[in-house]
Amino acid sequence: MKRRFSLLCICVLSLQMLFASQPNKLNEKRSHFKGKKPKYVFYFIGDGFGLSQSNAAEAYLAALNGKEGIQKLSMNTFPTQGFYTTYAENRFITGSAAAGTALSTGNKTSIGTIGMDASKQKPLVTIAEKARDKGYKVGVVTSVSLDHATPASFYAHQPSRNKYYNISVDLGKSQFNFFGGGGIKHPEGDGKTVKKNSVANMGLDDGAKINDHQENAITLAEKNGYTFVKTNEAFRKIKKGDDKVVAINYRLAGGKSLPYSIDQTEGDLSLGDYTQKAIEVLDNKKGFFLMVEGGKIDWACHANDAATAINEVIQFDLAIQKALDFYEKHPKETLIVVCGDHETGGLGLGFSGSHYHSDFKLLKNQKSSYEVFSARIKEMKKTGASFDQVMKAVRDNYGFDSGEKEMILSEYEIRQMKQAYDQSFGKGEKISNRDQYFQLYGSYDPVTVTACHILAQKAGLGWTTFSHTATPIPVRAIGSGAYLFEGYFDNTDMPKNIEVLMNL
Amino acid sequence: MKRRFSLLCICVLSLQMLFASQPNKLNEKRSHFKGKKPKYVFYFIGDGFGLSQSNAAEAYLAALNGKEGIQKLSMNTFPTQGFYTTYAENRFITGSAAAGTALSTGNKTSIGTIGMDASKQKPLVTIAEKARDKGYKVGVVTSVSLDHATPASFYAHQPSRNKYYNISVDLGKSQFNFFGGGGIKHPEGDGKTVKKNSVANMGLDDGAKINDHQENAITLAEKNGYTFVKTNEAFRKIKKGDDKVVAINYRLAGGKSLPYSIDQTEGDLSLGDYTQKAIEVLDNKKGFFLMVEGGKIDWACHANDAATAINEVIQFDLAIQKALDFYEKHPKETLIVVCGDHETGGLGLGFSGSHYHSDFKLLKNQKSSYEVFSARIKEMKKTGASFDQVMKAVRDNYGFDSGEKEMILSEYEIRQMKQAYDQSFGKGEKISNRDQYFQLYGSYDPVTVTACHILAQKAGLGWTTFSHTATPIPVRAIGSGAYLFEGYFDNTDMPKNIEVLMNL
Repeated sequence: MKRRFSLLCICVLSLQMLFASQPNKLNEKRSHFKGKKPKYVFYFIGDGFGLSQSNAAEAYLAALNGKEGIQKLSMNTFPTQGFYTTYAENRFITGSAAAGTALSTGNKTSIGTIGMDASKQKPLVTIAEKARDKGYKVGVVTSVSLDHATPASFYAHQPSRNKYYNISVDLGKSQFNFFGGGGIKHPEGDGKTVKKNSVANMGLDDGAKINDHQENAITLAEKNGYTFVKTNEAFRKIKKGDDKVVAINYRLAGGKSLPYSIDQTEGDLSLGDYTQKAIEVLDNKKGFFLMVEGGKIDWACHANDAATAINEVIQFDLAIQKALDFYEKHPKETLIVVCGDHETGGLGLGFSGSHYHSDFKLLKNQKSSYEVFSARIKEMKKTGASFDQVMKAVRDNYGFDSGEKEMILSEYEIRQMKQAYDQSFGKGEKISNRDQYFQLYGSYDPVTVTACHILAQKAGLGWTTFSHTATPIPVRAIGSGAYLFEGYFDNTDMPKNIEVLMNL
Repeated sequence: MKRRFSLLCICVLSLQMLFASQPNKLNEKRSHFKGKKPKYVFYFIGDGFGLSQSNAAEAYLAALNGKEGIQKLSMNTFPTQGFYTTYAENRFITGSAAAGTALSTGNKTSIGTIGMDASKQKPLVTIAEKARDKGYKVGVVTSVSLDHATPASFYAHQPSRNKYYNISVDLGKSQFNFFGGGGIKHPEGDGKTVKKNSVANMGLDDGAKINDHQENAITLAEKNGYTFVKTNEAFRKIKKGDDKVVAINYRLAGGKSLPYSIDQTEGDLSLGDYTQKAIEVLDNKKGFFLMVEGGKIDWACHANDAATAINEVIQFDLAIQKALDFYEKHPKETLIVVCGDHETGGLGLGFSGSHYHSDFKLLKNQKSSYEVFSARIKEMKKTGASFDQVMKAVRDNYGFDSGEKEMILSEYEIRQMKQAYDQSFGKGEKISNRDQYFQLYGSYDPVTVTACHILAQKAGLGWTTFSHTATPIPVRAIGSGAYLFEGYFDNTDMPKNIEVLMNL
């Protein structure tokens, strides 16, 4: 049987090579591009944003609206759709640094590397830098810290994404016109070791202790002409013509990011607000390039928190709507591209325990993100809260055992919660096997992650991992040159298309 | 916080409605089609074939070839790629009958319904029937039984996919020119009850006992002029100009299907052989319509058997290559469309326990499908085999604890196997909770499904369900009119495109 199958494989491979020997059609399409080139280019990147995240958000919106099927996100009404592979130079499942570098430079690189080649020796010029050098204004907006892997891939050149201090120094030297969203992680130097391959490290590669007691990166940026804006009042005053602005949110959540959409309160600025402000600042006759990252879809998916992730997708889509509004005014000169760097969580729109049943509106029961809820559990640990007390908090945050029949916890689910409580609070039988523990809870608080799992499962969603996956990522495009983003290609093709379209 | 989010949702919905009010662009594209219309149309449908199944096969081929990343399947070299939603009239997660009917008629219908509207009252005309009536020759090829949901959706009109006898009677009346692949399930009448919502029923809807002691469906078909061919020798003699042929494989596996690719032996006919024969029989100056189903990708994914599923995808791609060979001879008159009816299993290209690591070549260690291996376990149950004896068989079939370091079973994995053995063989502590049992094993033999899970996990793959999922499905097209299959649309758009292109 095995021999027959090997023969079959050789046969498939030969046929494929024959077919693959045809000229690269995307190259050909690029070189034949004769249309009007876009002056205003938007590059939206959802971190951890795969096909399932998009579809789950659409199903959720339909469910809220009492509609069968889906309610399309704005991005999914774009006329052009394609998808691409994401693997890194040295790993099939990529990370945000290698993926960001592929999307910013058109080169595969090694895991953890920002804007440099796979050997971490040679800096690679990014499309944002090329756009700057050609006289376009350039902006970078993100819901996570401004020195995080995806935004950093557009302006920094560092052998490790963990060199946050060096990255923020690069930010200050970038000459880009606008930065907005989260904060600067370690402006005074990184100063602490990120343990190699630790769970908190989310698969990063670098464990070295790096850069301490340097000149403050913010001070350096200010010397280079940047103004840091931190209050909502000052944010509102930023206007057309302002330059070299770094707008940091007044209220930062974990990792110096914007609070999750689900946790935002009155007065919080959203990703859409930063996108809108970036457009105001960058808008000029010579054109602009704006990268906007929906960075916390990924974080919520790492935690397998479906409700929080879906809300982040919807926020991301609202930011895209700001670009669409701009597009409506300049349809022949604007290009909007929306994509993701990789999928996170192996989100499946079906769960074994719920069989063929889905009920996405149940997700609306969740009140706050895993981040906020984990903090509450952490507080409860200090007082040695009982299982009943913890379950009261769980029921309150996730809406279990409330009015709806579908929200009643089953005997098995309560047992899972009890096991999680025992692990969180160091009671009962400890799970001594590391593999077993990690498969259940990853690096998250057991009570929180189990509650997130149960809610997702009741809605009809399942997860395969707390890490990224390698599934191809959809891209949508509208406007001038959008058709280059049709088909099935590689993430390195993305900036190559933009380069051709912007004459970089 | 919740109020803010509700406002946000209303805002998203309003914006979406504004955007959705633009004219249906696909309709417009169809009505403006001016190109040469295809005379030869191939419609390949992979059952249970989503983006992950395609990508896993490509990663596997690359791994076998010692290459990083992917090795493209032939189908994925097609210039046009799109994807579509699959939900049924009455369920978000569709089934093969409703999905097949959408793909054959352009109408949403209810779960379990074949070629009829959602109320199960009104028959719907399929594109295959319309093609027949317009003078095209028509063929149906599948790796499962010829009366299974997907092929049946092209010629039958029955309120339930479980009415196999009625469906095979419809086959005999269809006047289609060629059928090939699996067998006829119940030619003498169904005669047995399929329990409603039973696990073995894979989410079907109908529990009625139906049609017994009728005239044999094969005899009826023969009266209508059909010739049934069952030996390889007779199969080889089928030639151009032959008509009304039903070619059934000489060796049928479970459900009267072709044996799994991984289980095929010398002399077995493949899906590609049936596709090639269909082309020979149908080829004529007036043109033809050929539907080919890769039907067992779905079954292997229901069982969470990654190695078997991937081999089925590769077989499916080899069948597509037969159509590509034909396309090369008639490039201006041929259209090939390759799609799927839904995804099965929630396959994720990443597993919590393997973190960011993948090693797809490990899957080649598996010797036979879950089907063949389950049968072996069933035999072992009769002799009351010990855990050690069963583990010897497991190690032999899946290659665990063999030469490669990566194939060594961990302490936790051995514990999982022992628990599965206890459940399979009725020993040790029984899992009394139905939810827990189902989430672990679905309706499959616990030893087999656990071994399949462990191998998949070592390779870096995870599953979320034993059922289908609702994730959108990719479509690829090449040839005349292929560009209509670009973008993100609904499964009901698929036959509408083909209708326009074939003037049906």
